[in-house]
Amino acid sequence: MVIVLNKSISTADKENIRSFLTRKGFTVREIVGEEETIFGAVGLVQIDRREVELLSGVDQVIPITKPYKLASREFKKEDSLVSVGPVKIGPLRLAVIAGPCAIESRDQIMESARIVRDSGGVMLRGGAFKPRTSPYAFQGLGEEGARYLKEAGEKYGLPVVTEIVATEHADMLADIVDVLQIGARNMQNFELLKRVGSMNKPIILKRGMAATIEEWLMAAEYLMAHGAENVILCERGIRTFETYTRNTLDLSAIPVIKKLSHLPVIVDPSHATGIREKVIPMGLAAVAAGADGLVVEVHPDPEKALSDGPQSLLPEQFEKMMRDIEAMAPVVGRELE
Amino acid sequence: MVIVLNKSISTADKENIRSFLTRKGFTVREIVGEEETIFGAVGLVQIDRREVELLSGVDQVIPITKPYKLASREFKKEDSLVSVGPVKIGPLRLAVIAGPCAIESRDQIMESARIVRDSGGVMLRGGAFKPRTSPYAFQGLGEEGARYLKEAGEKYGLPVVTEIVATEHADMLADIVDVLQIGARNMQNFELLKRVGSMNKPIILKRGMAATIEEWLMAAEYLMAHGAENVILCERGIRTFETYTRNTLDLSAIPVIKKLSHLPVIVDPSHATGIREKVIPMGLAAVAAGADGLVVEVHPDPEKALSDGPQSLLPEQFEKMMRDIEAMAPVVGRELE
Amino acid sequence: MVIVLNKSISTADKENIRSFLTRKGFTVREIVGEEETIFGAVGLVQIDRREVELLSGVDQVIPITKPYKLASREFKKEDSLVSVGPVKIGPLRLAVIAGPCAIESRDQIMESARIVRDSGGVMLRGGAFKPRTSPYAFQGLGEEGARYLKEAGEKYGLPVVTEIVATEHADMLADIVDVLQIGARNMQNFELLKRVGSMNKPIILKRGMAATIEEWLMAAEYLMAHGAENVILCERGIRTFETYTRNTLDLSAIPVIKKLSHLPVIVDPSHATGIREKVIPMGLAAVAAGADGLVVEVHPDPEKALSDGPQSLLPEQFEKMMRDIEAMAPVVGRELE
Amino acid sequence: MVIVLNKSISTADKENIRSFLTRKGFTVREIVGEEETIFGAVGLVQIDRREVELLSGVDQVIPITKPYKLASREFKKEDSLVSVGPVKIGPLRLAVIAGPCAIESRDQIMESARIVRDSGGVMLRGGAFKPRTSPYAFQGLGEEGARYLKEAGEKYGLPVVTEIVATEHADMLADIVDVLQIGARNMQNFELLKRVGSMNKPIILKRGMAATIEEWLMAAEYLMAHGAENVILCERGIRTFETYTRNTLDLSAIPVIKKLSHLPVIVDPSHATGIREKVIPMGLAAVAAGADGLVVEVHPDPEKALSDGPQSLLPEQFEKMMRDIEAMAPVVGRELE
Repeated sequence: MVIVLNKSISTADKENIRSFLTRKGFTVREIVGEEETIFGAVGLVQIDRREVELLSGVDQVIPITKPYKLASREFKKEDSLVSVGPVKIGPLRLAVIAGPCAIESRDQIMESARIVRDSGGVMLRGGAFKPRTSPYAFQGLGEEGARYLKEAGEKYGLPVVTEIVATEHADMLADIVDVLQIGARNMQNFELLKRVGSMNKPIILKRGMAATIEEWLMAAEYLMAHGAENVILCERGIRTFETYTRNTLDLSAIPVIKKLSHLPVIVDPSHATGIREKVIPMGLAAVAAGADGLVVEVHPDPEKALSDGPQSLLPEQFEKMMRDIEAMAPVVGRELE
Repeated sequence: MVIVLNKSISTADKENIRSFLTRKGFTVREIVGEEETIFGAVGLVQIDRREVELLSGVDQVIPITKPYKLASREFKKEDSLVSVGPVKIGPLRLAVIAGPCAIESRDQIMESARIVRDSGGVMLRGGAFKPRTSPYAFQGLGEEGARYLKEAGEKYGLPVVTEIVATEHADMLADIVDVLQIGARNMQNFELLKRVGSMNKPIILKRGMAATIEEWLMAAEYLMAHGAENVILCERGIRTFETYTRNTLDLSAIPVIKKLSHLPVIVDPSHATGIREKVIPMGLAAVAAGADGLVVEVHPDPEKALSDGPQSLLPEQFEKMMRDIEAMAPVVGRELE
Repeated sequence: MVIVLNKSISTADKENIRSFLTRKGFTVREIVGEEETIFGAVGLVQIDRREVELLSGVDQVIPITKPYKLASREFKKEDSLVSVGPVKIGPLRLAVIAGPCAIESRDQIMESARIVRDSGGVMLRGGAFKPRTSPYAFQGLGEEGARYLKEAGEKYGLPVVTEIVATEHADMLADIVDVLQIGARNMQNFELLKRVGSMNKPIILKRGMAATIEEWLMAAEYLMAHGAENVILCERGIRTFETYTRNTLDLSAIPVIKKLSHLPVIVDPSHATGIREKVIPMGLAAVAAGADGLVVEVHPDPEKALSDGPQSLLPEQFEKMMRDIEAMAPVVGRELE
Repeated sequence: MVIVLNKSISTADKENIRSFLTRKGFTVREIVGEEETIFGAVGLVQIDRREVELLSGVDQVIPITKPYKLASREFKKEDSLVSVGPVKIGPLRLAVIAGPCAIESRDQIMESARIVRDSGGVMLRGGAFKPRTSPYAFQGLGEEGARYLKEAGEKYGLPVVTEIVATEHADMLADIVDVLQIGARNMQNFELLKRVGSMNKPIILKRGMAATIEEWLMAAEYLMAHGAENVILCERGIRTFETYTRNTLDLSAIPVIKKLSHLPVIVDPSHATGIREKVIPMGLAAVAAGADGLVVEVHPDPEKALSDGPQSLLPEQFEKMMRDIEAMAPVVGRELE
């Protein structure tokens, strides 16, 4: 922690700050400059920096320790590789996870799985419990849906992922699916993070719509502090003033994450843009920006989808996107998983 | 729903759009202008507007029905008045809810309750389960804390409110406290909304950091659609590019809410600003802007607080703020509850 | 400047950073902690901190010197008081500047001046050159309008303020009006800032829609570095994701500015909210939050206004607002100017 | 324009709204639904929609006409191709404009031009007048710099582009350079737009940091309404809550612009990210997302740059990026210009 002192600080205030910090367990060094005087305070202690800000004579307090450890690049220098059955997500690879927004029926998810597998997707997604902004909208098939998902995945050799929205579904879902997803709206549902983190399952952690990269990594830290080892970050757009697109896909988060963390990062262009025609360009852009994979919505018949049909790719669009990604992969030093 | 057609739309596309809408159950009227042609589609049906956006020849689709009903001013013309025991929150009144961020001990909450009561607060707040961004931070006393809170409230004649962070705490907390609070990070934790909405308890619903006013009202709609009748909205700052303050308190949301909804709206200046010295000016500003009340953090000894001490008012500051509010209340046609 | 070093930095990299900083003229002190090692670099030199960020072994660079000097509270401890003829803007006072968005005719601005004076406003505003987002909208009466404005101000004893949008109008406007306003869209039009800063006129500097408080103070610094002594800051709303209001009025900027700077700060609730019914509550809130004054749009007949009629107060609303402000002023320790 | 009426509107209010609109020149059609009643008002007239919002009985007013015409896809169906000497910017091509942030000396810009040409760039950029946030920072060489730029461009066969920051430089710069650039901070400096729009020069129009896509297109409309025919839009990042990157590059704006407008759109990854190591991934991502070109900062010796050195590519990085772009171009159906 660095404390910038007020230029006209009194000697008494200065000593008071120094002794406050020392009492808390910090080692304090003073640096006197022509323009400003600062205290550098180092130590293993954690403290709410606003406590120091409120001391008389303090101008500014600057934290220098990252609040996350296990998720940080310092903790683990090499890129993490997350394995889900035969599928690997991480360096040099490009993994495409696809499927419908919601599982609507046994037939629909079976047909979706076939489409995903035929075009080269390596994991099947589908929502069993849907967090909907309207209480009057379709809320998902629940456990029954999760079972259909798994059945479809097994038939076509694809591990499956579904979103978990409540701790009471944890054991049931963990028994059925291969990967659990934490949705954007639950990124700071800390009770859910604690529970899912302790379940020894791979996890896809979506970035909250208003979450800074640091908060996102802190949410990953929650999972890891409770035991999770296989966490995949997923960028899906942040909220900005621009309203033409549903959210603003923050692709520059990819190189930032690659610097700060060892965790793999994938991108969901479907939820970010909310409309089919923008999914492919943004999916390709994500790959070009260095993503380790994509999560994409595809539906056998989007016009009949019960949820998010307009952002689901048509099967032939998905097929086309996969071919483009395959062509682009070598340019960014990757190979389609 | 209004559909703006492309200027060079073909007759076939136009008929296709019309029949699509009719099939879905809408009544369609065409309006031909010199600059544009539009379809007005009215009806009781709900549809994802992006389905129409994707039809060939459609330029833009504009929803005209508000997605919330029970929370809307149309549904109930008069301002709602929420009663919590003897306390009333709503028109003509000004209710101040106060207490520490976290319940830390029996003594601390007892002393807090005394301070709140003595200065004119009408309800006691305190966190039993704390949603913390760091997994390594103090997470609250849990049920034990809630019991201390209730005991303190009873001793000083104050109803009590605490935040609920997980559905599994619902029955326990409902037995103990008078009002349940949904925190900003859980505003779209729909499973929690469903559960809390069905409990027949007054609820304070904080606005999510990235929630539009419409999404906030939709969260209230969730509560109400599941049975809740006494919902109090609470503005606590939104996330913007400005970083000098923790969040940007959106006081203009107050007159907007007053127009759109019948629900009472209160303001939490403590979490919005994150630092003590800005709490009082923003609290007074909230009152001037038309809020029905405030939620303010006050602590007997903020320097020793385990959570959010720097944003807690000192007892004498709280006392001063209450006197200022009392002086200001008549200007805005209200009386301190 | 504080440089946080990478935990696994090599000795060579460390020495390289140290010598780079020394060469640039900094005095460097090392602080070794258990979790991190930092360099504190102090000195009078200015440097792009990203140059240091790019050095091998550097984790993070934290600036500690504020980039503005003349506008800072350190430079001048007491609140500045800006005088415009007999009007004073600053501590203990509350100055209300009012008038129509655009000067539309001699009669319109005369009648506006009468309304402003009769209700207790102390300065007259009116746009001669209008920055309009559409090239097809009314662009103002130009110099002729400025002359009408001054005539009206003289008749009713009110100093006048108008916006300057181009350096080529500088001499002409400076000859006519008492105060020059820099609009939000020109807050970082540095050529304009240089020119207006050198003209020895009081200036109202509006905050840009996407300007941080620091950038706003830097724009004030531009004016002051070129000679301006009487700068009044004006908060008018920032751009956020919320779209119910045109902009989000950031009232918490007021206590922040009061801490960082000695300059007076006023608030424009008309442009922030964009709609008449929200102007009064937000105007009162601004006063409660500690503003030194308001700029409000009022029009003798808003329905006929050529620009921004919907956000202009009716004369009777302005009268009512002035009475409310008068009642509220003592609560915040001020007196209507 | 669509007017949503209040559910409990009186007949008198309804007739008042209808006659208000008719008086203004609109043709009005009523659509009665079970949930709501709306008026569709069509016509060639322009009106501030808030005037209607304020009428009694109006719930909401929804504009349906785009405020820009000349910049719209309706006005011109095919993609525009902008020619600058031998260089073409538009469909099927990929044009890379590069050079240093600021022109610092004759030698520096000469060497920069060589680097740009050798690696396959087709236009040379360089700032003569620098808009700097600090009044104390290097402000550019001015006209002398522009002359060096042109000389360097001529020697290496590259057209040149520089930013214009003030109308008084317009004639001088137009005589020297091939393309004028409007910077992000001046995107709504309407006086500058009018002047530059009337000069019969190709223009690069950067998106303002807080500009919506509609406002950006309105700024293009300003240029075109004053005569400009060759306008190139340039995305360079928007301001969001995320602070790890300087701005958030909004690549989803590319497919949006492609739908709304016929103008070419290029991307500046240097200013968006502000740091060298993120420029290449975001540049590639822009190409993958469908951009018609890039503007990239490259400097012969970034460590010695007087401005923005840290975001300038090293010559060898630029060379590498160009090779990657060349490999990627066919995937998106383009060829390096």
